[in-house]
Amino acid sequence: MEKSTSSRERKTAISPLRSEDYPEWYQQVIKASDLAENSPVRGCMVIKPWGYAIWENIQRVLDKRFKETGHVNAYFPLLIPLSFMEKEAEHVEGFAKECAVVTHHRLQADSQGKLRPSGQLEEPYVIRPTSETIIGHSYSKWIQSYRDLPVLINQWANVMRWEMRTRLFLRTSEFLWQEGHTAHATQEEAWEETLRMLDVYRDFAKDWLAVPTVAGRKTPDERFPGAVETLTFEAMMQDRKALQFGTSHFLGQNFAKAFDIQFLDQDGERKYVWTTSWGSTTRYIGGLVMTHSDDDGLVLPPRIAPQQIVIMPILKKDSSEVLEFCERLKKELEAQNLHGEPVRVFIDKRDMTGGEKGWDHVKKGVPIRVEVGPRDIAKQSVFVGRRDQGVTDKRSLPVSEFVKTIGGTLSEMQAGLYAKAEAFLKQNLRQIDSLDEFEAFFTPKGKDEEREIFGGFALTHWNEAAIGHPLLKKLKVTPRCIPHTREEWGVGIEEKGRCLFTGKDSKVRVIFGRAY
Amino acid sequence: MEKSTSSRERKTAISPLRSEDYPEWYQQVIKASDLAENSPVRGCMVIKPWGYAIWENIQRVLDKRFKETGHVNAYFPLLIPLSFMEKEAEHVEGFAKECAVVTHHRLQADSQGKLRPSGQLEEPYVIRPTSETIIGHSYSKWIQSYRDLPVLINQWANVMRWEMRTRLFLRTSEFLWQEGHTAHATQEEAWEETLRMLDVYRDFAKDWLAVPTVAGRKTPDERFPGAVETLTFEAMMQDRKALQFGTSHFLGQNFAKAFDIQFLDQDGERKYVWTTSWGSTTRYIGGLVMTHSDDDGLVLPPRIAPQQIVIMPILKKDSSEVLEFCERLKKELEAQNLHGEPVRVFIDKRDMTGGEKGWDHVKKGVPIRVEVGPRDIAKQSVFVGRRDQGVTDKRSLPVSEFVKTIGGTLSEMQAGLYAKAEAFLKQNLRQIDSLDEFEAFFTPKGKDEEREIFGGFALTHWNEAAIGHPLLKKLKVTPRCIPHTREEWGVGIEEKGRCLFTGKDSKVRVIFGRAY
Repeated sequence: MEKSTSSRERKTAISPLRSEDYPEWYQQVIKASDLAENSPVRGCMVIKPWGYAIWENIQRVLDKRFKETGHVNAYFPLLIPLSFMEKEAEHVEGFAKECAVVTHHRLQADSQGKLRPSGQLEEPYVIRPTSETIIGHSYSKWIQSYRDLPVLINQWANVMRWEMRTRLFLRTSEFLWQEGHTAHATQEEAWEETLRMLDVYRDFAKDWLAVPTVAGRKTPDERFPGAVETLTFEAMMQDRKALQFGTSHFLGQNFAKAFDIQFLDQDGERKYVWTTSWGSTTRYIGGLVMTHSDDDGLVLPPRIAPQQIVIMPILKKDSSEVLEFCERLKKELEAQNLHGEPVRVFIDKRDMTGGEKGWDHVKKGVPIRVEVGPRDIAKQSVFVGRRDQGVTDKRSLPVSEFVKTIGGTLSEMQAGLYAKAEAFLKQNLRQIDSLDEFEAFFTPKGKDEEREIFGGFALTHWNEAAIGHPLLKKLKVTPRCIPHTREEWGVGIEEKGRCLFTGKDSKVRVIFGRAY
Repeated sequence: MEKSTSSRERKTAISPLRSEDYPEWYQQVIKASDLAENSPVRGCMVIKPWGYAIWENIQRVLDKRFKETGHVNAYFPLLIPLSFMEKEAEHVEGFAKECAVVTHHRLQADSQGKLRPSGQLEEPYVIRPTSETIIGHSYSKWIQSYRDLPVLINQWANVMRWEMRTRLFLRTSEFLWQEGHTAHATQEEAWEETLRMLDVYRDFAKDWLAVPTVAGRKTPDERFPGAVETLTFEAMMQDRKALQFGTSHFLGQNFAKAFDIQFLDQDGERKYVWTTSWGSTTRYIGGLVMTHSDDDGLVLPPRIAPQQIVIMPILKKDSSEVLEFCERLKKELEAQNLHGEPVRVFIDKRDMTGGEKGWDHVKKGVPIRVEVGPRDIAKQSVFVGRRDQGVTDKRSLPVSEFVKTIGGTLSEMQAGLYAKAEAFLKQNLRQIDSLDEFEAFFTPKGKDEEREIFGGFALTHWNEAAIGHPLLKKLKVTPRCIPHTREEWGVGIEEKGRCLFTGKDSKVRVIFGRAY
């Protein structure tokens, strides 16, 4: 690994550094790790194989959890009739400005041979920005009796929201997601579901992505269009901005009334159902990148990494012995497990220098790199690098010890990444009780503005009357959530006070932050 | 199961019978088995949970096979710029008439408050009917050197082809599919890939769906727009029509030239790559329905069934003993396996009569139904019905025997369904050597036209000059494929003869059929 040992002040793989220009660093990490790229379609990305493999892991784990909590998958149309969008007033208000509209159903060459849209549709369709309306229509036909309830359905799909300013994974016009849509006989049951799915998400972010989050209700200005309550869980990125990871909505009877979803209850009365919806997206990957990565590229928590170990054979003239050793090692490692799943290993036989190859896997965030050459085989040892340690801090380990301890090592790495992210969040979450302090907290000092790193989570008293307050607009700060519990982050939340912005009564503290 | 035993000439669950009105029977089977339904969006379907669970199994198995053959997944944009469509002449010619076109990116209320498309796009987009063009664009950037080859990528996605006459699963405007897109340094390698993926598909259809197929090349008139060769595999439905199950295309350098996908070869020369693409869709489910189902509804081959065994507890006053017994039985069955996969079992505790419940699972095609009541428990036996036997042919079996033999039973059912379908195909595949015989073969007699069951596969001599022959148009018969080998279906294929339609030389027999 010449590149890394040649000088004491080694070059990093990513330029600029996080501390120099955070947004540009993010783009460069994604490029260097080959996760995704912009496409020729405005605001849409191509998710490349390494990025998609992370998404496949996310899907696998979440899908299992959805099924364990009683849900089944189904699939509803991509297109939504315009008339459906109009049925729920807040909903259409929230999405009308970002809908891709299908107006024609064929192409025809004009007199110059240029293709033009042809075959105009009587009623245009929009590409689903979310599916409450089209699914609500189905539920109104499927649900007749209390025996048909609850309906617990999830959909894995692509959706489209025409965004003007896009950023890979964080905000793209098309993105991949899952959207759960459930219908219940009672308000209580629907509310329990809303809470349950937030927990499913949050546990997933914690246990698999190693991302700590704050969770709670959204303030009215931040609710999903058409929801009675929106629950959210939000992570803090390394620039101290908040990233909304996913949301779970209690929709009350709003969509049930808009789409006439009624059932005959046990008491013989016809009633509207109570519905929920909950979604999370490829944005997880952006959050993963921004939580753990460093100036050498992507850092992947082992549990979500497509591959956990790369074996790099040092190939000279006669390589058959080295390759056989690597194949055996791969099998032995795959017989080990991390939290009950077999360890994922691959051998990189590509024809390139060891240095280049090693750096490639550093940038891609592979948790463990193993080099194997004839001398290692002679000593029955392997040369091991960990992505959570310095690139040059590699150690020679006896093969048997390496194999035996691999599950523990990976688990330790996973826990370490979470602990580091959690410490960072705690360090940058502050209880704030004056407007001056609030303004200072969210005002960049010195180079902060240029590198776009400042602020954090401010826990302050708040009243609904503060919505739209000029200071918030000026600082580009928004309420992220009203946290669930006072214990969670070791700070007082459910306490009486005075709203920082209006001086009115406040019953609860709210977390404010700059947000993606 | 009162409904089934109350009369000797028992009613069937599906009306009309296959033999009365085949197309309507198909719709009714899908309805009764709750697989899917039409949506309010023209030509698009809702895939309901039971249907989607079959698709999930299809995805799981195919995805594993794709990965075993060296492919990785990725994701490309849903929308394709119009200018991309124009780059390959045959391609756009083939798809222009069925493209959904996006022309606007927002909705705005007019003076009456009606929503109208607004924000017209400079260049319209089409919703992908297939992705050769947008992927070709990416490949032209990704591929620089022979070291970058082969590129072996698959995508799971939704696509849209605006169809005028749609039928659930068989032909819908939106459908779900996978599309493989590969690029190779040499023609040979690309051709091998084209053949390999056809085999992957065909083995899957045989081993998992229990569907026998004929396979071979398409005649020029039936090729994919832009392909040099299209390989296909086609099954025979119970109405003796052909269903194209999937295709694998050798694209030569057509798309490489249209999208300028070049690489620097080892010999220092810049060359165009050779590409392939291959796809299969939710149509598999339609083919599954039409191959195995009967007048009582869906019949699912066990390996692809979402659930292989339903346990139906007979619930009286105190049901705890029965439920405990069922839970134990479920665990014991799940410890068994079918071809290496754990057996899939669920308990149906719904509050409805045993008869209703049993018929529900018959219609849904669950392979094994097990009834458990207090009397069965006393005898340590279970009452078992198999979907491949008469609905009333149920047997009492000792629990231990039932559990021990379940893997074998399911395997036998799977093989039995394949054998039956294969016998049907062979029986209706005929070597035909005169035009009169050909016409008679494809002309309905008596009630055949009304019930839409007639014809089969005709193996006849053929020459390219026969494309568009009036008799073929009149009979609505098309060449389905030029089979690969002479051995496969026990009939002579690669032999010299005279084209039935033109009298010109023929080197090979072609399979003709009426097709979906």
